[in-house]
Parts: sequence; C-alpha cells; structure tokens
Amino acid sequence: MAPKSQLDAIVSLAKRRGFVFQAGEIYGGSRSAWDYGPLGVELKENIKEQWWQTFVRGREDMVGLDSSVILPKQVWEASGHVATFTDPLVECLNCHKRHRQDHLIEAYVSKKGRQPENGMESITCPDCGVTGKWTEPQMFSGLMKTFLGPVDNAEGLHYMRPETAQGIFVNFNNVVTASRKKPPFGIGQIGKAFRNEITPGNFIFRTREFEQMEIEFFTAPAEADEWFEHWVDSCWNWFVDLGINPDNMRKFDVPEDERAHYSAGTIDVEYRFGFQGNEWGELMGIANRTDFDLGSHSKASGHELSYFDQTTNERYIPYVIEPSFGLTRSMMAFLVDAYSEDEAPNTKGGVDKRTVLRLDPRLAPVKAAVLPLSRNEDLSPKARGLAAELRKHWNIDFDDAGAIGRRYRRQDEVGTPFCITVDFDTLEDQAVTIRERDTMSQDRVSLDKVQGYLFERLAKN
Amino acid sequence: MAPKSQLDAIVSLAKRRGFVFQAGEIYGGSRSAWDYGPLGVELKENIKEQWWQTFVRGREDMVGLDSSVILPKQVWEASGHVATFTDPLVECLNCHKRHRQDHLIEAYVSKKGRQPENGMESITCPDCGVTGKWTEPQMFSGLMKTFLGPVDNAEGLHYMRPETAQGIFVNFNNVVTASRKKPPFGIGQIGKAFRNEITPGNFIFRTREFEQMEIEFFTAPAEADEWFEHWVDSCWNWFVDLGINPDNMRKFDVPEDERAHYSAGTIDVEYRFGFQGNEWGELMGIANRTDFDLGSHSKASGHELSYFDQTTNERYIPYVIEPSFGLTRSMMAFLVDAYSEDEAPNTKGGVDKRTVLRLDPRLAPVKAAVLPLSRNEDLSPKARGLAAELRKHWNIDFDDAGAIGRRYRRQDEVGTPFCITVDFDTLEDQAVTIRERDTMSQDRVSLDKVQGYLFERLAKN
Repeated sequence: MAPKSQLDAIVSLAKRRGFVFQAGEIYGGSRSAWDYGPLGVELKENIKEQWWQTFVRGREDMVGLDSSVILPKQVWEASGHVATFTDPLVECLNCHKRHRQDHLIEAYVSKKGRQPENGMESITCPDCGVTGKWTEPQMFSGLMKTFLGPVDNAEGLHYMRPETAQGIFVNFNNVVTASRKKPPFGIGQIGKAFRNEITPGNFIFRTREFEQMEIEFFTAPAEADEWFEHWVDSCWNWFVDLGINPDNMRKFDVPEDERAHYSAGTIDVEYRFGFQGNEWGELMGIANRTDFDLGSHSKASGHELSYFDQTTNERYIPYVIEPSFGLTRSMMAFLVDAYSEDEAPNTKGGVDKRTVLRLDPRLAPVKAAVLPLSRNEDLSPKARGLAAELRKHWNIDFDDAGAIGRRYRRQDEVGTPFCITVDFDTLEDQAVTIRERDTMSQDRVSLDKVQGYLFERLAKN
Repeated sequence: MAPKSQLDAIVSLAKRRGFVFQAGEIYGGSRSAWDYGPLGVELKENIKEQWWQTFVRGREDMVGLDSSVILPKQVWEASGHVATFTDPLVECLNCHKRHRQDHLIEAYVSKKGRQPENGMESITCPDCGVTGKWTEPQMFSGLMKTFLGPVDNAEGLHYMRPETAQGIFVNFNNVVTASRKKPPFGIGQIGKAFRNEITPGNFIFRTREFEQMEIEFFTAPAEADEWFEHWVDSCWNWFVDLGINPDNMRKFDVPEDERAHYSAGTIDVEYRFGFQGNEWGELMGIANRTDFDLGSHSKASGHELSYFDQTTNERYIPYVIEPSFGLTRSMMAFLVDAYSEDEAPNTKGGVDKRTVLRLDPRLAPVKAAVLPLSRNEDLSPKARGLAAELRKHWNIDFDDAGAIGRRYRRQDEVGTPFCITVDFDTLEDQAVTIRERDTMSQDRVSLDKVQGYLFERLAKN
C-alpha cells in the first residue's frame, strides 16, 4: 500500500474526532456535501467570527447583510448566470462516468506540463483508464433549481444562489438608504451557496453545497484599481495573521479567457492543499466586477442602482471589487496548515510521536481542557466546577478518561491550546497546572487566576 | 385610514433602518423570504450567539453540529416527511387564490369562538370576500425539491430540509463516537430550513426560507418526561432572561390531533405578536419525539442508531426531546417586545416623542454610537479615533450629521444602548459624555476608561 498522504491523515482525523462527517452517510452519502461535527462547527464559527470582525464590524467602511438563498429567476437572468454559468460535461464511452472537460485538461497540463496535442483523444479516463473515448462536450448548468408554490411550472421556477453576491447587488439601494453609506464602502455577507458540480471531490474542497464569505466593495470607477490592490493585500494578510504559512500561498493572475463573465481582472489566492496531481487549489479570489452587476440589474429591473455624488454633482454606477472567500476551503486550509507531527516526552523518560494541530488560539475549537488527574471524589467535583466556570466564556472540554499523557495527546490532535490539570496538590494550594500545546511548557496558576490567564492568551484582538 | 398598528410601525422601522428588506424587491419580490440588512444581520447574529452560548457551549451535556441543507430522499422517506409533511390546500372558486384549509378554520375559530357549523360552507375568502365557494381540499407537500447531477430524474431527486433535526438524527452514531457523549446529552444546530408554504405572510413570521435553532436531546426512555419539563423551563427562561416580558408569552399544550406525526407530546411557546385576528403566534415548540426518528432511520438505513449502556448492560434507542426555536420568529418577538414610545427632553425645554427599542444590550445591533458634537477639524478625528478603538470589540456607529438630539433619536429607535458624545471640553479634559438609552442619564467618563465602562455594562453573561 502506498504511504498515506498528509491529506489522508487529516481527512481521517477530521472524521474520527468529529470535525467533518460525510453528509447522509448512513444512506450511502449524498456525495454533494459534508456535515460539520462538534469540533468542525466550532472551528467554522471561529473562522466566521474572525472574518466578520476583521472585514465587517471592525471597519468603518463596511456593513453586513444576510440575504436569501432562493431568488427569482429574473435575478439570475440579469446576472448572466442562466446564460453563462455552465461547464462542459463529457462522458467516458467505456465506463459512462461523467467529468468536467476543463478539469480533465487541467489535470493533463499539470501532469505533463503541456497542452494535450490531440485534444480529448489524449485524455485518459481517471475512472476506467481508457484513453480518448469521450462524448462531445455538452454545456451543463451549474444552477440548482427548485419550485415555489403548488405546481412545478415556469411561474414557480426559482434558483438557489450559486454565489451570495447577487443578494448584495439587488439590495444596493436599500442598504445605501438605510445605512447612509457612500462609496467607497462595502457590504459583507456569509452564507451558503449551491452549485450543481459535475464532479464534487477533494474532501470539503469542491462540494455542491458550501459556504462563502463575500465582500462587494463599491467604489468610484477611477478608484477601482487602487481598491483592488488594497483588497488583495488585506485578504492575503488575514490568512497570514491567522497562522497560514505564506510559503503555502501564492497569487495567480487569472488570464482573461479563464475569468468569469463579469470580471475585468481577477487574482486568485491559492493554497498548497497537497492534492494528488496538482497540489495547489483556489482558496479565494479578488475580482474587479466593474459596473457589470449594478448595471445589469438596473437595466433588467428598471430600478437604477447608482450613486449620486453630491460633491461632484454626478450620478454614476459604482465599480465593484469583490473579495470572495470559500469558508469551507478556508477551514480546510487552516486544518492542513496546522497539521503537524512531532515528539512529546512520555512517562518512561522516552518520547512518543504526537500529532498536533497548531491552530491559532482564536480558531481552536476547544480553548481549554480541564483534566482531573484521576477519577476521584475530591478531584472530579473541583475539576467540573472549574470547567463550568470557564464554560461561561469559552468552549471547554472535560476529560477524565485514561492516563494523563494520553489525554494530552487527544487534546493536541484537535488543537486545544491549554490543558488544565487538577491534581492532589490542588486540594492544598488551590492551584492548577496549565500546559501549553505547542511548547508543552507548564505553569502553576492559582484557581482564581485561571480565567485571567486564559483571557490574556486567547485574546480576541 | 385605520390607525397604524404597532406591528405596522415595526415593519416600517425595520425597512427604513435596515433591519429587514423584502427579498428580490427590485424584481417585485419573491414573497417567500426576507433579507436581513446591516442592523438585522447584527441582531440576528447576536441572538444566535446567545442561544449557542446558553444551550451549546455553556452546557457540558451539549455539543454542536452543522449538517447540510440537501439530503437524499431516503432520509425524508424514513423520517415520514415524504408521506405526511403535507397541508390541505383549498382554492377559492371565485378569485382562484389558494389557502391552507386549516389556517382558514383556525382564523374562523379565533374570530367566532366556535367551530364552523357547516364546514367550509361557512368560510369566507379573505381575498375576495365570497363565502363558501371552495374546491375540495388537496394535500400539498411542503417539501422543496431540487435535482443533483446532470439530469432531472428520480436518481437526482433530493429534498431541501424542512427542519434541521434530521441532519442531527442521521449523524447520531458519528457524534457519539467522535465526542464520546452518552445519554442524557444533546446536539444543537442553527441553520436554514425550507418549506413550500402555501400562504407565507405576517412579515418574517411565516416564510418559505427561514432559520431554526434546534436541539435534539437524547435520553433513556424512562427519563424523557423529566427532561421534557427541564427543556420547557429552560427555553421559557432564555426568552425572559433576554428581556421578553413573560406577560406576552404563554404555553400551549398541543392536543394529540394537532401534533406532528412524530410527537407524543408538544408544548408550544407562543408570543403575542399582535397579528390582526389572532394576535398570538408560535415562537417555538418542545416535542417529545420518542424513539420515532432514531428507530425509523435504523430500520430504513440498516445502521442501528442506538446506545449501549455499560452500567446496565442494555442497548436501547434513546428518546428525543426536541426544543425547536424559530430564529427569525425569535428576532421578530425581540423586536416587538422591545418597541416602545415615550418622551425625551428637547433643546427648547419641552419634550418630544421618541421611539426606542429597549433591546437587551447583548442583543442590540449597535453597542455604542460615537457622536462628535459638531463637524470640526479637532472633534472629528478625536471621535473617529475613539470609534476605531471601540470597533475592535463591538459594532460601533459613527454619526456626525445633524443636531445632537436628532442623532440620539436615530440611535434610540435602533436600540443602541450607549451614545458617546465628543464635545469641546473633551479637547481639554480628555473625557466624553456617555448617555444611556433607557434612562437617558449621562456620565462623564475619561477617554481611557470608556472601554472598561462599556465592557462592564454590555457584559456578555
């Protein structure tokens, strides 16, 4: 058997410890989405909280929004999605598995370092291994439809959003009027989006149901390029500040023919996920959507989505700079980047291998674990009492099962920054031992100082 | 014209100040959902945060989950939704508007205090006023469907969840294994759900796309009744602790023939929303789902969803107590309950009417507003600097437009607990005036103490 890749180890850890489960697993799985378990939901919420604080609450020039998933089909006609949000689908004539043609060609280029010379005749089916037996490509819509009202007819046809952005554009006038913001300003939104992907895969990287964190930043056309640069830097720095090693990130200036229909310029931030074949994958992108969206919706709806600048006495349709983050992709990057293996001392004076998630404390799903040295009628209530106190502020684990070293290992592999041991001395000195995850250094801290100790070290900004 | 009801005033305020907008408004609206504007999304997030802290992070016997919206149809067959999640639809033969038969009868009973003696012949169409002209009722599925994969066929048919609960049940074994919890314990989840309602209405009360906050609490069958009582009390107290006047809430013990198909007992908590006709509406419900769901999924999937109790050496299917909250309904209740009108002193020595949202500070969308007394090259940067400092911790507004009294009114009507005025004395004494929303009392606080002052008074927990 081939040695397990690091990505395989992370997927396995994620399942075993309750970060990520396959959706609908007991029914064979939907192959379309993943469910986030007790630790996964905490990690994901922490990422959202950091993003919202950095890009929305923390900035005077930003406000938030939460718009609906289902929108009338006119929205998706005006946005260009009904006409152009399509992918080329090919089917293997031998095994009848379906693939995206562009993904097959990308994989070929990434492996061989050149374009396939005979087009699809050079391409081998990744499922059955037969080369060059493909149907002609068919364009396939990535929009998921549903029907509202009692009858499944054209009147009831609605689409689930493939991006959160359009909900922001159609609310542009509402937000400007209610919040009295003027360009340059932006609207941020976190929410689910749905795409009927032909080939979901690579764990939580490409799924049919996923979450986005998007900003639509509205600016005077003349200032668009400057804001584009600002947002490329801000997004890059956000990941670095939260612990991603910049050596594992790179920028990709998307060539014109690969850009979305609305974009006059796109920089993708890619992360080294370690996929087989091409190890890099898109983490997020910053696009200059120009006045395409506000202009299209103005035309289609008859409502002018524009801004009147009282200082210049001019009305204009703002340009939009869009930083669009994959939330679930971000979570995957934080997991991959945090994953490491090193050695920890064992009780026999030797060392054991340990797995440790070196997550930034702000992201760690469990902030501290309270561990009574043994199951004991004096230690247990003391430890439970401390855990209950700390739970008023943080997600806290309590674990009294097994040897203390093993309990440390369990916390290390889910990234818990602090382990708090309640031992027999605690009953005398009213103090506990706090062990830090990365250095494994230990401090003796009196019980009434534990909360302050953690507040200082888990500091949210 | 009839005098505007309080509910009308709240809907109007919600639109004008950016709490709630009609979804897809520039295209005539989807009539199915609402969008949450800059203040609405903050209020909604604060409610979620309080709920998660109280019921998930804050409890040792709870963990969280975030499962997918789209699940395979087998899940909804096993859960009973495909067969029984239906409503009786009738159509007026005169105006062809469609209604839910049970809602028409409920409205009749609520108005007349008795059942209609001649069945539907007694019922008047609320749209056109014609009495007794109805089609026979047809059962109409509340499930929204969508198709995954390239072809809209039976194989690709999936349903969007009408409740978040099933995603919890199908992950029962995953969560027990990963988190090592044993009954009594629960799993909490916040997320969107979708129901193809025949007659959405009453603002954000009944929509086709909405958000739920649900707990599935797993217990030994013999302890189910005790836990049911526990959860009825806990849920009630959560609303009261966050400021809802208990006089505006009541419990309704749902009779057997009105309960959902899975329930052996349901208590609804109702709130006095002030709707026309029947002013009360369901805010949340606590149901005893017995072993219906885990049992059904065990049978349908072939995976046994049960628990082996090592102390008694017995395997059993846990009973489920389900507290199910409407998030958007909760938000509406908090808005209605907080809305009030009183008087505030004006600069002429008299009083003006003011609208004030007396939201609990933990829920208030804006925690403080920084107001420079006038637009001035010394005051403005000082005030902006203070706002930027405070924005590291809270959602902060900055407003320098108009008379100070008018700016207070603007903050009062969106529930901002504190207004911080930077005046000319500030340049000398390095202090600001902090005004409290409800009492309108003012404190002079030195600049370096403002953060501590707010931390104390906005205290989370």
